Amino acid sequence: MSTNKQKTTDISELGEFGLINRITKDIRINHKNTLKGVGDDAAVIDYGNTCALVTTDLLVEGIHFNLIYTPLKHLGYKAVVVNLSDVYAMNATPKQITVSIAISAKFTVEHIEELYEGIYLACEHYKVDLIGGDTSSSLTGLAISITAIGEAKKENITYRSTAKKNDILCVTGNLGAAYMGLQLLEREKEIFKTNPTSRPSLEGYDYILQRQLKPEARKDMMELFKEINIKPTSMIDISDGLSSEIMHICKDSNVGCKIFQDKIPIDENTAQMADEFNIEPLIAALNGGEDYELLFTIDIKDLDKIKDQPMIHAIGHIADKELGTVMISNSGQSIELKAQGWNQMNKQ
Amino acid sequence: MSTNKQKTTDISELGEFGLINRITKDIRINHKNTLKGVGDDAAVIDYGNTCALVTTDLLVEGIHFNLIYTPLKHLGYKAVVVNLSDVYAMNATPKQITVSIAISAKFTVEHIEELYEGIYLACEHYKVDLIGGDTSSSLTGLAISITAIGEAKKENITYRSTAKKNDILCVTGNLGAAYMGLQLLEREKEIFKTNPTSRPSLEGYDYILQRQLKPEARKDMMELFKEINIKPTSMIDISDGLSSEIMHICKDSNVGCKIFQDKIPIDENTAQMADEFNIEPLIAALNGGEDYELLFTIDIKDLDKIKDQPMIHAIGHIADKELGTVMISNSGQSIELKAQGWNQMNKQ
Repeated sequence: MSTNKQKTTDISELGEFGLINRITKDIRINHKNTLKGVGDDAAVIDYGNTCALVTTDLLVEGIHFNLIYTPLKHLGYKAVVVNLSDVYAMNATPKQITVSIAISAKFTVEHIEELYEGIYLACEHYKVDLIGGDTSSSLTGLAISITAIGEAKKENITYRSTAKKNDILCVTGNLGAAYMGLQLLEREKEIFKTNPTSRPSLEGYDYILQRQLKPEARKDMMELFKEINIKPTSMIDISDGLSSEIMHICKDSNVGCKIFQDKIPIDENTAQMADEFNIEPLIAALNGGEDYELLFTIDIKDLDKIKDQPMIHAIGHIADKELGTVMISNSGQSIELKAQGWNQMNKQ
Repeated sequence: MSTNKQKTTDISELGEFGLINRITKDIRINHKNTLKGVGDDAAVIDYGNTCALVTTDLLVEGIHFNLIYTPLKHLGYKAVVVNLSDVYAMNATPKQITVSIAISAKFTVEHIEELYEGIYLACEHYKVDLIGGDTSSSLTGLAISITAIGEAKKENITYRSTAKKNDILCVTGNLGAAYMGLQLLEREKEIFKTNPTSRPSLEGYDYILQRQLKPEARKDMMELFKEINIKPTSMIDISDGLSSEIMHICKDSNVGCKIFQDKIPIDENTAQMADEFNIEPLIAALNGGEDYELLFTIDIKDLDKIKDQPMIHAIGHIADKELGTVMISNSGQSIELKAQGWNQMNKQ
């Protein structure tokens, strides 16, 4: 492998988002029905009566998952869910997926069947059709590449770039649980390595483990939005941690925001586990990732519509860009939010 | 990694197509706009005025490509082309692609830029928009997963399953060149390994090298079909070798066929290289793969429309299923065609 170019730049110098910016900076769009390309949870293609939403994720063994503690069936389920979550984040309904896998010689037919059991379970639960894919050998480990395709009317699609001043910032569910589940699994893995006769102590931790191993996408929110007659003014799914996603919305919408620490929803199981690990639960919520909750903004006039919804939490509001993206801590301090990129990706 | 199941079956026991059959046998389709799922060159989703065609391919370093002799720019170009070829094989026009990559630490930003130069070159040449993707780390090597999305009117789409008795079987261009290009590259790699000061002797072999390293998809045929007013009765692209593709069409259409050895188009460069390698050129054409030509059938009444087309070769005709899939050799023997599966995939 050679390169014609003189300079060599390590990818870690740019980080994930830097690399994406670099390789997409000269992108050209030829077709007017490509309504949205790179830069949101999903791309949007206009087919006249309806729009197709397209999103894709690539999961690599040793990077995104560890088969020591991830059952293949759960992995298959999760691999689908993380893609569907991106479609829901556009206020759209996922309808189809393609699944490609690369598998090394350590996998048997029965392993692959287990993986697909999880994939089909997710297809059934979320009512999506598996319509294609590819199978390949790999030299090491397993890689799963899924593309999800959804549908929405053009006028219902929500983007990251359309939040406006005074909109209310909301999150669904609670944050940080998946990250604490991962910490627990990693701890037990290390104990097991040192003492293979030990049994993992995972009892009583069902909630955070389930959030890590078998997360769900917020299909229910699509139904709720219709029921309470809300169209978010912007939306994104929380896959890289709240901080990162807030910064995406603010940067793309050219606005700032103010959120409040005491409004960030953290489940008591998460807080308890964080306490055990001597981690600040807030850090798990802000930077932990893999929550697959939704972060969205609503017009302030819709505030009453969400106030009795137990799954929706208003955590702050959109402000002028000049304010930056700040969090008011419980002690009243104003703290600038920071996002993580590539390192976050490699955390597992 | 554990499995709940008692039995373990090595994947090689089933082969690629066997594995695909196994994991897709219980597939259920929920949405009536999923017109075609697994089992053709691309899936078909009906959006009313138009249909979307969706196809995906996963290319893995060490399996599908060798970076010792594959320039990254060529690899990027080819990775796009192999997907577009599947869309053309449905008689449709590719419009959008997503590109996901997993990259190990040996790759620099400049390497990735070279890869994307090739990707963008293909986008420009074939007028497709890059609309999304994913970037990930990998523990070893490079993997590229591309999904291509095309468009067609429902009535224009061609499937594998609709060939009928007496239809004429046609191929475009010529076959076996990409395979011979690969043999040449592999030979020079081995020589280089033994004697690193040797210079590869690739001169005069431009055609077969280009067919291997920078293949093109048959966009021109879509235009030609319109011009000469033909809709193939069935179609598939030739990625795994002519034998394998003929058998797909015959099996899916529930028919047999008879082709003639002397009608199979083989370029003189291919024949010459095959001679040098002591390989029967016919074997390269039947089983070599990666030609990205089109195999299609036309109604016999359209035969006159193709007879003056230099790029279209009638190689035989569709027959009753009972006849099997046979080739009449130059010496008049009737030979049953055989397809290769998984091994073929692993050939590189």
